[in-house]
Amino acid sequence: MRLNELLNSVAEAGREILSKRDKSLPEKTLETHCANLLSNKGEALGSAFAMAVVIAYRKSNEEEKLKFFYHLLESYSPNPELVIQRANEYKASNDYKAYAALNDAVESPRQMLFRRINMAPNGTETLVELRCDLLRFIKNNPELKTIDYDLSHLLKSWFNRGFLTLEEIRWDSPAVILEKLIKYEAVHYMSGWEDLKKRLGKNRRCYAFFHPSLPGEPLIFVEVALVKGLADSIPPLIDPTLDASISENKTDTAIFYSISNCQAGLAGISFGNFLIKQVVMELKRELPHLTQFSTLSPIPGFLKWLSREQENGDSEFIKETDRDVLSLLGNEHWYQDQEISEAVKPVLMGLCKKYLFHAKRGKLPCDPVARFHLGNGARIERLNWMGDKSANGLDQSAGMLVNYFYEISEVEKNHEAFINDGVIATSKDFKRKLSSI
Amino acid sequence: MRLNELLNSVAEAGREILSKRDKSLPEKTLETHCANLLSNKGEALGSAFAMAVVIAYRKSNEEEKLKFFYHLLESYSPNPELVIQRANEYKASNDYKAYAALNDAVESPRQMLFRRINMAPNGTETLVELRCDLLRFIKNNPELKTIDYDLSHLLKSWFNRGFLTLEEIRWDSPAVILEKLIKYEAVHYMSGWEDLKKRLGKNRRCYAFFHPSLPGEPLIFVEVALVKGLADSIPPLIDPTLDASISENKTDTAIFYSISNCQAGLAGISFGNFLIKQVVMELKRELPHLTQFSTLSPIPGFLKWLSREQENGDSEFIKETDRDVLSLLGNEHWYQDQEISEAVKPVLMGLCKKYLFHAKRGKLPCDPVARFHLGNGARIERLNWMGDKSANGLDQSAGMLVNYFYEISEVEKNHEAFINDGVIATSKDFKRKLSSI
Amino acid sequence: MRLNELLNSVAEAGREILSKRDKSLPEKTLETHCANLLSNKGEALGSAFAMAVVIAYRKSNEEEKLKFFYHLLESYSPNPELVIQRANEYKASNDYKAYAALNDAVESPRQMLFRRINMAPNGTETLVELRCDLLRFIKNNPELKTIDYDLSHLLKSWFNRGFLTLEEIRWDSPAVILEKLIKYEAVHYMSGWEDLKKRLGKNRRCYAFFHPSLPGEPLIFVEVALVKGLADSIPPLIDPTLDASISENKTDTAIFYSISNCQAGLAGISFGNFLIKQVVMELKRELPHLTQFSTLSPIPGFLKWLSREQENGDSEFIKETDRDVLSLLGNEHWYQDQEISEAVKPVLMGLCKKYLFHAKRGKLPCDPVARFHLGNGARIERLNWMGDKSANGLDQSAGMLVNYFYEISEVEKNHEAFINDGVIATSKDFKRKLSSI
Amino acid sequence: MRLNELLNSVAEAGREILSKRDKSLPEKTLETHCANLLSNKGEALGSAFAMAVVIAYRKSNEEEKLKFFYHLLESYSPNPELVIQRANEYKASNDYKAYAALNDAVESPRQMLFRRINMAPNGTETLVELRCDLLRFIKNNPELKTIDYDLSHLLKSWFNRGFLTLEEIRWDSPAVILEKLIKYEAVHYMSGWEDLKKRLGKNRRCYAFFHPSLPGEPLIFVEVALVKGLADSIPPLIDPTLDASISENKTDTAIFYSISNCQAGLAGISFGNFLIKQVVMELKRELPHLTQFSTLSPIPGFLKWLSREQENGDSEFIKETDRDVLSLLGNEHWYQDQEISEAVKPVLMGLCKKYLFHAKRGKLPCDPVARFHLGNGARIERLNWMGDKSANGLDQSAGMLVNYFYEISEVEKNHEAFINDGVIATSKDFKRKLSSI
Repeated sequence: MRLNELLNSVAEAGREILSKRDKSLPEKTLETHCANLLSNKGEALGSAFAMAVVIAYRKSNEEEKLKFFYHLLESYSPNPELVIQRANEYKASNDYKAYAALNDAVESPRQMLFRRINMAPNGTETLVELRCDLLRFIKNNPELKTIDYDLSHLLKSWFNRGFLTLEEIRWDSPAVILEKLIKYEAVHYMSGWEDLKKRLGKNRRCYAFFHPSLPGEPLIFVEVALVKGLADSIPPLIDPTLDASISENKTDTAIFYSISNCQAGLAGISFGNFLIKQVVMELKRELPHLTQFSTLSPIPGFLKWLSREQENGDSEFIKETDRDVLSLLGNEHWYQDQEISEAVKPVLMGLCKKYLFHAKRGKLPCDPVARFHLGNGARIERLNWMGDKSANGLDQSAGMLVNYFYEISEVEKNHEAFINDGVIATSKDFKRKLSSI
Repeated sequence: MRLNELLNSVAEAGREILSKRDKSLPEKTLETHCANLLSNKGEALGSAFAMAVVIAYRKSNEEEKLKFFYHLLESYSPNPELVIQRANEYKASNDYKAYAALNDAVESPRQMLFRRINMAPNGTETLVELRCDLLRFIKNNPELKTIDYDLSHLLKSWFNRGFLTLEEIRWDSPAVILEKLIKYEAVHYMSGWEDLKKRLGKNRRCYAFFHPSLPGEPLIFVEVALVKGLADSIPPLIDPTLDASISENKTDTAIFYSISNCQAGLAGISFGNFLIKQVVMELKRELPHLTQFSTLSPIPGFLKWLSREQENGDSEFIKETDRDVLSLLGNEHWYQDQEISEAVKPVLMGLCKKYLFHAKRGKLPCDPVARFHLGNGARIERLNWMGDKSANGLDQSAGMLVNYFYEISEVEKNHEAFINDGVIATSKDFKRKLSSI
Repeated sequence: MRLNELLNSVAEAGREILSKRDKSLPEKTLETHCANLLSNKGEALGSAFAMAVVIAYRKSNEEEKLKFFYHLLESYSPNPELVIQRANEYKASNDYKAYAALNDAVESPRQMLFRRINMAPNGTETLVELRCDLLRFIKNNPELKTIDYDLSHLLKSWFNRGFLTLEEIRWDSPAVILEKLIKYEAVHYMSGWEDLKKRLGKNRRCYAFFHPSLPGEPLIFVEVALVKGLADSIPPLIDPTLDASISENKTDTAIFYSISNCQAGLAGISFGNFLIKQVVMELKRELPHLTQFSTLSPIPGFLKWLSREQENGDSEFIKETDRDVLSLLGNEHWYQDQEISEAVKPVLMGLCKKYLFHAKRGKLPCDPVARFHLGNGARIERLNWMGDKSANGLDQSAGMLVNYFYEISEVEKNHEAFINDGVIATSKDFKRKLSSI
Repeated sequence: MRLNELLNSVAEAGREILSKRDKSLPEKTLETHCANLLSNKGEALGSAFAMAVVIAYRKSNEEEKLKFFYHLLESYSPNPELVIQRANEYKASNDYKAYAALNDAVESPRQMLFRRINMAPNGTETLVELRCDLLRFIKNNPELKTIDYDLSHLLKSWFNRGFLTLEEIRWDSPAVILEKLIKYEAVHYMSGWEDLKKRLGKNRRCYAFFHPSLPGEPLIFVEVALVKGLADSIPPLIDPTLDASISENKTDTAIFYSISNCQAGLAGISFGNFLIKQVVMELKRELPHLTQFSTLSPIPGFLKWLSREQENGDSEFIKETDRDVLSLLGNEHWYQDQEISEAVKPVLMGLCKKYLFHAKRGKLPCDPVARFHLGNGARIERLNWMGDKSANGLDQSAGMLVNYFYEISEVEKNHEAFINDGVIATSKDFKRKLSSI
């Protein structure tokens, strides 16, 4: 039996007992419940008190939640005086007692509170939800970042990669999980169950990370198509009836064409880099005949960057002759007009390559998807013309897509060069054409 | 597929790649592997580096391990100067930046190291093993308690009750789990599989806590017998063929007769209080006709205490007349001699009640088992003569056993009075007889 | 590992070996494959030969299949001469040898052929499919019923109730099973996944029988709603958002509102009677507070019967005064017109009660649904006006529905009286009103 | 939920109802229960009546059981007169009706009875048990073979290979299954759990067939050792600590060293031939580097045959000179005496080869193990001196063992030649040495 179910009945039973003794329980504030939970009463019937906090939090409206977060900030922060005293003692003696006392003084009581909330049924879920709210509030209340420091510290520790399980998602997975794929797919929209069934069809794979405390809730998932040769276009990947549907043992390439995070409350607690590499290994093990592992990725920042560069008279990237050509994009149907399309193609592809390779924020690439895969140790392999003619694809990158290639034996070297020196790994072909632009 | 298996192949593959690039890898020291794991290299192929640490640690001998722990103490501790500086800045500004900087300065790099080790296959297992070693070393090297502060802090967070799963253990459980029950049973010795099968027989239950990262490894387990009326003796509990084997729906009482911790490396990270209460709730749910939940527990400290009191001429507990009677215990076979047995019974039972109720360490009872159950909110119900005539039972408590009774509706009240004021809850009968002694 | 997967690889491997030795294998006819399978070659690599039959059958077109069934009829029937000889020997000696010889002579080689086909991967599935084809052919080729005698005999034995597993279907069941519910629902149409999710929502249950050899294929399923009091109308049952959604422990009645068979190839191999009674028992066990178990069922034959009676000038059921009232039904929107509706209600309800109670085919009721539930031992409880205003409901029974009530303690008695003497059990109220018509 | 559990509660509930109506139920005879079960009452509450039969049968003593079997023989056999009539009608008309009528007349009511018993909880188990009893009675009551004709016919159909599941048995399998391996191991005795753990250790495999209706009950299992080169001796196989424990990917040969049937009541319903071939395929799939699949088998009939030949003065196999040598075997410790051992070795090995190849019963080999593996299509590969020095090995075959080799591509050819013409396949080496004797 899963503990959660049991916790439920334990906590329910506990709550009944509490209610009998204290008729005013349901009226108590979230703040009172927290105080009870942290007191030694909490040790005896911890999950009942924790459940009271969970229920009270979930009932709160926006205003009450914000008030609650400020309460956490004001009443559950470490005491500066005490911290300085303990810091001095630590410097003086440097022994176990001083070390423990310093740490106890610095660790905010919020962390213990969060750990105790986690004992309630759905505790972890509530904390992830709570962080989702918190991140929203932080935009206008930046001082709440202090609370997120504690909460995200805890979640990073709990969602440590060693605690995640990788699971394959298939058409015979539980519907309650599958409906979440439809909901969370963030790259190539799914209109419903029929779309989903196609993405789990022949020569298709889907993998997700799960955490034991969020059963039935994928954290992140990746969709994969097994094909022959590097894919250059999205439609045949998301609809297998469009491709020549060869038999699995004739495929040689795994294309990662969509990666979606599912939990807004886990933003910034990165799983993506682990996920891709583990799926590569898993596919290699299961299908040893696969030799290439690559993404087919969007270039979300290209057109925005291009428009900024066009406005910039001194752009180092745009030649004068390009500007006329680019003006053809004003025609709404430019990509359906073969003549225009052929005229803009070399200019757009040249600029897009420059964008991927030269456009930087600090020493790293502007483009967030590029930053992600290059940071993982992949290389830029190839730019593809008209790989995604959906409205979104045209808006972001004039329909272009790029392959990032995962060569496992180079991943570590690429990663180090990228992180330390901003070096961008590319295929020979990409490099050659880039120089010739 | 469980992540561990996959991590294994991922990490193996990573290690192969690393080995090819760096022929000296296998010779590198544990210390070097740790440095690599904490560097940014670790981010690309984290689990490969983590695995190198795990392998190197497991190969180490006692001397190398001790050296390693001192290395952790010296090279991975927070910098006192920096801590003081950050503490002052925090006091001055009290904003997010200062808060984060203070915490970063105080959190020892060991914690990050341990979290990264946890990414390796068997990472959690290795950390539990490492703590087991550490606790051993601490006896002669108390300064290493500083490291245990960090490690136990992390393990407490990871083994948070919200992450544990309660599972029933039955005769159709995997042998690989069952053999651990035989190994870890700490209260009433099992000689092998036949004994185990009896303890999982008719009207018997066994429950254990598991953690998702230690598959197949019980953390703690409790053995339960369903009987009619409060049990007063061990043999019929551990061998159902000895009791009148009534049908399950005629039972009214669940007796918790054995609780064993399994992981030395998790010492002090308490699960027992959760376990008993949850099993009570679970049994109530499954078998609503059960009305009593009680232990039949050893009294491990009684005879040691008694012998100290006997040596103490001024003992407030022992009457002069008792001393003669107690000398009869010098006869090795006293408990088989009905005459002696009857003579010592009232004296021993009287003294044992005093021991349980009056003998204190601080404001809490001397006896560790009493401390545990009373701290959980149970009450002392009844003392039982000759409940355990095994060598161990005679040595610890002259064969006496005690029932601690779990009345869920009183657990919280009892717990609070016990923790705050040292009040010991008892049955009316126990109290009455105690006063009359 | 499930045998089917393995059988697949075994049979594939076997087929490869066979193909190497016999290049003409793929061209061989279904008839040749059957002959091989029955020969002693089949014993060595049985599943390979069986697989050849399965593949060849699935490739066949209608004409080839029909030819194949005639081949089974002509070449695999028992030899009449031999049967007579063995019958005489059996009469003469009546010993084991004669008994075995008689049976061997009478059992058609088709049965052995079918049993061997069953060894192939998907063998059972193929045989069910084959019977589905066969039943279709029988309409125009009644002599093929001889083959169905053998095939259905075998399937009845294999789908013996002792081999079926009852499983609850929930929203977290595999999508591959759920999509079959949408497909096979035969009583109250589901338009897709949203409908299905409602039917598996709060206070709803769904159970199906499965057979180990048809994994993922429900044989029959029943949809249940937990409500307070006997339900009289379909819409709130198939859409829980329409009912007052009380908490589960406030419900007292389980309504079986839809039962659908899934496998056309298993027609006539009845599971429905087992299913309902077992679900009643299962619900009683899980939810002891339920006290009533009833269907809310269509009356598929009522309007057809009524129209026949109307055409019959001498109908013993229709009074002259009724005929005028009934003519109001000519108005397409009669049921939306309150005046008409109220006028026809007493007449239609009276006639429908007579239909259910008096209209017979032989000694059993005309109505197939009545025959099914009364044959299971249920009683007619209540007739409900306007319980199903769907097009189908109006067409069949002018929107009326009937409750059949399962009183487990009366089921056997009712069943016997019904089967032996055609006695129809009813509630007192139904009986009373019936007499007063 | 498994049907069996549910059937239990259904049948229990049914039985309660029956008991209330008919107080004499528990006193009724097995024969009465059978009559009820076959009547139409059985259709309403079938499992309750079936359960009554099961309970009554299990309570019966030997005498009552024998009486019951004679009752089945006398009261449930087909009517010879009717059979002849139907046979004549079938010959005359040859249509569906005549066919069905013939079959109905010939099929004994016992078959329906057995099928209905199968609906009870543990029905299949009871029928297997019943056949176990029946086979015992047949020895002295050969006329009961008639009943076994029906029962084994049914069991063969139900235990059709298509319904079996192959499962790997490992140390983490349920103890309730593992204890049955200890109990049923019939070739190389296991003394208990320690022995079993070794046989499931490194480079060891174990596979069993299960049937869905006998959960937790292996039907047959095979133990496999993965080694390098053909094994010639048992001890290193049953105790992996004795072999050089190479890493799995260095092994090239799977040795099947023990095959045991588990269910006496399924005697003669052969699974062994399927089992070995499927395990070969499964191992090939999982471990593609394995190239040899062979048994290391006992030769149970050799010494018995040899002693008969020695008594036969005209033996065509034993030379005069051999007789003297063979007399050395009179020394109880002959195999420990190197001199004797070397003297008898060539003679015994020569004779044993002749035994395996020439000693026949009909056209097939005398030796039952040879008959089994050669019938499966294996070949005799090699005879091994002193492969099994256990008491049993010495008694059966003077410690010799033989390897039967499974070359999947030859299995079908070998099988056909063996079954049709008694041709025994051997390795070239075996053949060559055989001729040279």
